[in-house]
Amino acid sequence: MNVKMIARITGLSLFLTSFFMLVPAGIAVFDGQRLNALSYVGSVLIACLAGSLLLFFARGDNGTFYAQEGFAATGISWILMSLCGALPFRVSGEIPRYVDALFEIISGFTTTGASILTDVESLSRCHLYWRSFSHWLGGMGMLVFLLAVVPQARKTAGAGMHLMRAESPGPSVGKLVPTLRKTAAILYGLYITLTALCVLFLLAGGMPLFDSLCIAYGTAGTGGFSVKNDSMGGYSPYLQNVVTVFMLLFGVNFSIYFLLVLRQFKQVAKNEELRLYLAIAGSAILLIAWNISGMYATPGEALHHAAFQVSSIMTTTGYGTVDFEQWPAFSKSILLILMYIGACAGSTGGGLKVSRVLLLLKTVKQTVRRVLHPRRVQTVRMDGRAVDPEITNNVNAYLAVYCVIVLLSFMLVSLDGYSIGTNLSAVTACFNNIGPGFELVGATGNYSHYSDFSKLVLSADMLLGRLEIFPLLVLFSPDTWSRKA
Amino acid sequence: MNVKMIARITGLSLFLTSFFMLVPAGIAVFDGQRLNALSYVGSVLIACLAGSLLLFFARGDNGTFYAQEGFAATGISWILMSLCGALPFRVSGEIPRYVDALFEIISGFTTTGASILTDVESLSRCHLYWRSFSHWLGGMGMLVFLLAVVPQARKTAGAGMHLMRAESPGPSVGKLVPTLRKTAAILYGLYITLTALCVLFLLAGGMPLFDSLCIAYGTAGTGGFSVKNDSMGGYSPYLQNVVTVFMLLFGVNFSIYFLLVLRQFKQVAKNEELRLYLAIAGSAILLIAWNISGMYATPGEALHHAAFQVSSIMTTTGYGTVDFEQWPAFSKSILLILMYIGACAGSTGGGLKVSRVLLLLKTVKQTVRRVLHPRRVQTVRMDGRAVDPEITNNVNAYLAVYCVIVLLSFMLVSLDGYSIGTNLSAVTACFNNIGPGFELVGATGNYSHYSDFSKLVLSADMLLGRLEIFPLLVLFSPDTWSRKA
Repeated sequence: MNVKMIARITGLSLFLTSFFMLVPAGIAVFDGQRLNALSYVGSVLIACLAGSLLLFFARGDNGTFYAQEGFAATGISWILMSLCGALPFRVSGEIPRYVDALFEIISGFTTTGASILTDVESLSRCHLYWRSFSHWLGGMGMLVFLLAVVPQARKTAGAGMHLMRAESPGPSVGKLVPTLRKTAAILYGLYITLTALCVLFLLAGGMPLFDSLCIAYGTAGTGGFSVKNDSMGGYSPYLQNVVTVFMLLFGVNFSIYFLLVLRQFKQVAKNEELRLYLAIAGSAILLIAWNISGMYATPGEALHHAAFQVSSIMTTTGYGTVDFEQWPAFSKSILLILMYIGACAGSTGGGLKVSRVLLLLKTVKQTVRRVLHPRRVQTVRMDGRAVDPEITNNVNAYLAVYCVIVLLSFMLVSLDGYSIGTNLSAVTACFNNIGPGFELVGATGNYSHYSDFSKLVLSADMLLGRLEIFPLLVLFSPDTWSRKA
Repeated sequence: MNVKMIARITGLSLFLTSFFMLVPAGIAVFDGQRLNALSYVGSVLIACLAGSLLLFFARGDNGTFYAQEGFAATGISWILMSLCGALPFRVSGEIPRYVDALFEIISGFTTTGASILTDVESLSRCHLYWRSFSHWLGGMGMLVFLLAVVPQARKTAGAGMHLMRAESPGPSVGKLVPTLRKTAAILYGLYITLTALCVLFLLAGGMPLFDSLCIAYGTAGTGGFSVKNDSMGGYSPYLQNVVTVFMLLFGVNFSIYFLLVLRQFKQVAKNEELRLYLAIAGSAILLIAWNISGMYATPGEALHHAAFQVSSIMTTTGYGTVDFEQWPAFSKSILLILMYIGACAGSTGGGLKVSRVLLLLKTVKQTVRRVLHPRRVQTVRMDGRAVDPEITNNVNAYLAVYCVIVLLSFMLVSLDGYSIGTNLSAVTACFNNIGPGFELVGATGNYSHYSDFSKLVLSADMLLGRLEIFPLLVLFSPDTWSRKA
């Protein structure tokens, strides 16, 4: 284990966090809020100090950097960034307890959008901005950002790919172009462009600039923190439609946009994950619209809310236009299933990912065939190419550990005594980085009633979900820290 | 597809069902209930007629019999036996609707124990006996019984093994002795011995003979139908303890008992599945006893009820001594997780099976290691031997299709509008062949309030759970019925 290299990556990521905390500090100054400004500046200093110590410790080493180091560096970076990012909320006193502040910022960085706040609108603008911006940062990944802009992070051969693999969602990560720096830069280029487009469309509908920025960050990162207590409910249907479309867009694998830029339309049309993603979203929208049609004045209105909520849940964003807790059980069960499926791999969305679901279904089909015809050779194919059995095995193991974590967390959270529906949907919504669940943690509820212990369990679930389990699993595996090579 | 061979197996299984229906017919005659006696005799005649037609159709063929035929024959046999077994309930009018009668007998054969009856005690003794005896038949498997006693079923080379593999629970089926007939006979010998022991211990505690037989059938098959409305609640603590112990015993892989008969104690002590099974049951009992200790007069009483309920749920039996719906959420969440884990492979219990859980956990460990050290060769080992990757792949695919079926059934059952807790636990309890779930389908509830559609979905889940998915999946796969070889 190359501890120095890990320290360097972690130190750099702390500097990055403190850099981005300067924006809310500026907002606090602009709003004339001295305590808030000081709490951000203080947090910046603490993060910089910790980062400097780590970089000092890491000096001089340029050794090997393998998958193990990539996972560990990613896991530790996310934990330390969260610990620092939570400070301003606590120091300013606007979130009086540190465990709540930590829950809130982990929910932000992991693009979950679950909140312990009962009244979002009472929060100062600087905090609202930092909450929403943490979605944007966490969506594409802070280490990917490091790779795109900081030369030091790429110094060691191989480090970049391992970091990218550890931080990017989905069963397999492909470079878009031969160099990694360019791949990371292209991803962030597309991300910034789409986010800017979203802001422009929101501004065009008359949304104030501050709201537009925050909502666009939450949409782009598929996070779901809003600046209003009723989430997206108070905005006009046009603004809601803009968010519906952009949520769906940010749930698509970013390599699709790269193919579009390269005018490879045929390849896009043939992409199996994209087709399944749109097919699932489309059928879910129609089923729910049919199921809730009696609750709204016109079928169009039912379709409008169904489309918004399906896009919001499937992309694991978590915005709401209505209290979908009031919807019939059938619609809620569809939403619960969408929570597990999630968005496309290589997007900013969470969940199992559509491509994993696709691979799982194909593996099942292959297994049935193999049981029936043991002598025929069976391969799993995707987008016309045979899939490496290594990848299908990993996907299968991922499902197993996924189920174990869901059930264990569900058991631990149950110690607080709420209903099966509340506890299961809380774990589902946190682990898949969605935000709202059902019953007590539903569209109009929040996570404030859970005990500190449960909040920490759910925080861990959010990190496990965003980093796709392995970086944290590796971090807590005795194998990793043993002296043997 | 060798349709004639499938017809022969199915026809024989119908004759077997009608043979066993003669016992409740005798009870009805003894009790002087003419209508009930006639309804059993009529059902026997219908089953025999259908069986004869199938055997007539099947005459003369002795062709090939592969895995495909084994799965299809098993699936069709179980469906036809259920359709016939449900007749007496409906014809006698004691269960006025056929869909309810079908749910009840499928629940019996699959050893689920979920009931649509609101008042069990109002049922005639012949029906109570048939319900409970269907547990005993379904527990070890009716086709395994055929293999043990009917020479015609073994006529074709290979047929036996394929049937046994399709009907027996667990990731892999091993012959205990070289000949299949002897293996099946040994299994039924052990089964009958253990059941008889259970009856003796119950009689010794003063339980009436009729109750003893019915409760022993439900315990042996890990079914859970009782003859009282309060399940096991009204019996003495001694009788409850007898059932606790025997439920645990019937949840053990029967090959363990064969090893004990052969005095291979070392191999038994080293069996990883058995050790994990006992470890899980033990920890669950202690955790729940601690959690519910405030609800009972003494810690001993809490331990007594915790032990009973854990054994009942983990072995997927479903008996109850108390209304565990009143227990704290933590205890209920542990029970819900036990529902998924289930008993040992090769036992009469349902669920995923402990050995599958063990293999899944080992696969996860192996995958983490492979990600960290890509060049090292990693094998999954169980009981000291390397596991065929074919088996681990099948287990992984099994988990995937298991999750898909749980989620789809949950969605369909939600059309009736009950809560997440009710619907999820109903699907979980039926699919894993347990019986009672939580909330509306909890210890004091039943399944009568569900719509016919949901009852059919849940009936399908029970069959899918008992036959471990593939036989029914094969039955409904277009691949199976295509003309191509």
